Amino acid sequence: MAHITNSVEYGIHCLLWLVDPASGQPSSRDLAELQGISPSFVAKIFPKLEKAGIVQAAAGVRGGYRLARLPTDISVLDIVDAIEGHKPLFDCQEIRDRCAVFENDAPGWATAGVCAIHAAMLRAEQAMRESLARETLAEIAAVVERKAPKSFPVEVRGWLNERTKGRATRPPMKPPGIP
Amino acid sequence: MAHITNSVEYGIHCLLWLVDPASGQPSSRDLAELQGISPSFVAKIFPKLEKAGIVQAAAGVRGGYRLARLPTDISVLDIVDAIEGHKPLFDCQEIRDRCAVFENDAPGWATAGVCAIHAAMLRAEQAMRESLARETLAEIAAVVERKAPKSFPVEVRGWLNERTKGRATRPPMKPPGIP
Repeated sequence: MAHITNSVEYGIHCLLWLVDPASGQPSSRDLAELQGISPSFVAKIFPKLEKAGIVQAAAGVRGGYRLARLPTDISVLDIVDAIEGHKPLFDCQEIRDRCAVFENDAPGWATAGVCAIHAAMLRAEQAMRESLARETLAEIAAVVERKAPKSFPVEVRGWLNERTKGRATRPPMKPPGIP
Repeated sequence: MAHITNSVEYGIHCLLWLVDPASGQPSSRDLAELQGISPSFVAKIFPKLEKAGIVQAAAGVRGGYRLARLPTDISVLDIVDAIEGHKPLFDCQEIRDRCAVFENDAPGWATAGVCAIHAAMLRAEQAMRESLARETLAEIAAVVERKAPKSFPVEVRGWLNERTKGRATRPPMKPPGIP
C-alpha cells in the first residue's frame, strides 16, 4: 500500500464536492454514490474529518456534511493527518548500539542524539509535509473548476439536491425488531 | 511498514562501514555480524546495491564489497531507489470518470491531464526525493565520525580485517554431496 492511501484520495475527492456551499449537506453515502465508490469505505473517513475540524455534521433527515472552515484554510496535509494520523515516512530501528566492537556495552556517544540516517529521513519527511501543507482544498477545487464546463457544477448541485430531497420524503425507517 | 523500509536503513548502515577504504572488503555476512543484524536480510540488499553501481563485489575467499564510487557521489536517494525501486508515495485510483452525472460516459475534460489531487501528491513526492538527493553517504559518515572517538574506526577496521583473515585461513568448503 502506498504511504498516502486511497482513504486520503477518496477523502479529498469527497471534500471537493463540499467546496460549493450550494451543494447542500450531502451525506457520506450521497458523496460515495455520486463518485461510484464504496459507501462503507467513505463512511469510515468522515468521522475522522469531523474530529479534525475539517467538516461539520448536521443532524436530521436532511443532515449530512459541510466544510467546517474555508477551503483556503484546509491544506492537503490537514486532510492526510486527519485520515492517516501522523504516519512516519521511516521507522528507525536504532541498531547503532549493537555494533560488535561494543561487546554488548554501547558507549553513550554511540546512541546520543538522533541517528544520522534517521535525521536524513526526517528532513525528507519534513520536505514532503511542507509541500502538502502548501496545497489547499481551494486550489485543487480551482483546478477542477477551470477544466469543467459551467454546466457541470450545476448538474452536480442538482444531483445532490435531489438526493437530499429524496431522503426527506422517504418513509422513516422502522426501529429494529419491528417487522 | 513505513514507506522507506528497514532494508534501506540496514543498507545505509552497511555502506557507512565501507566509506573507510582501510576497512578492506567485508562480506555482507561480516557487515551483518558487525552490526548485530540478520545476515540473510543483509545478503538480499547487496545485489541490489551492486546492480545500481553503488558497490562492487570482489570475488575470492577474501572477496567482499567495496564502494563503486566516492561517498560524495552516493546520495540517500540513490540508495533508496536501488533497494526499493521507484515506489510511489501515492497510488492514484483515477476515480474521476465514475461521477454519477456522467452516466457511465465520462467526457474528455473529466479525465484530461493528471488529476489535481494526484498532481499535489506528485509535488510532495518530488520534494521528498529532492531532499533525499541532497543527502550523501559522505555527509552521514562525517556526522558519525564527528561523534565517535578516534579509536572507534581503528577498532572497527581491526574487527573487519580479522574477519577477512579468518575467512582466508578457514578450510575450503566441501562441494555439496561430498560427505
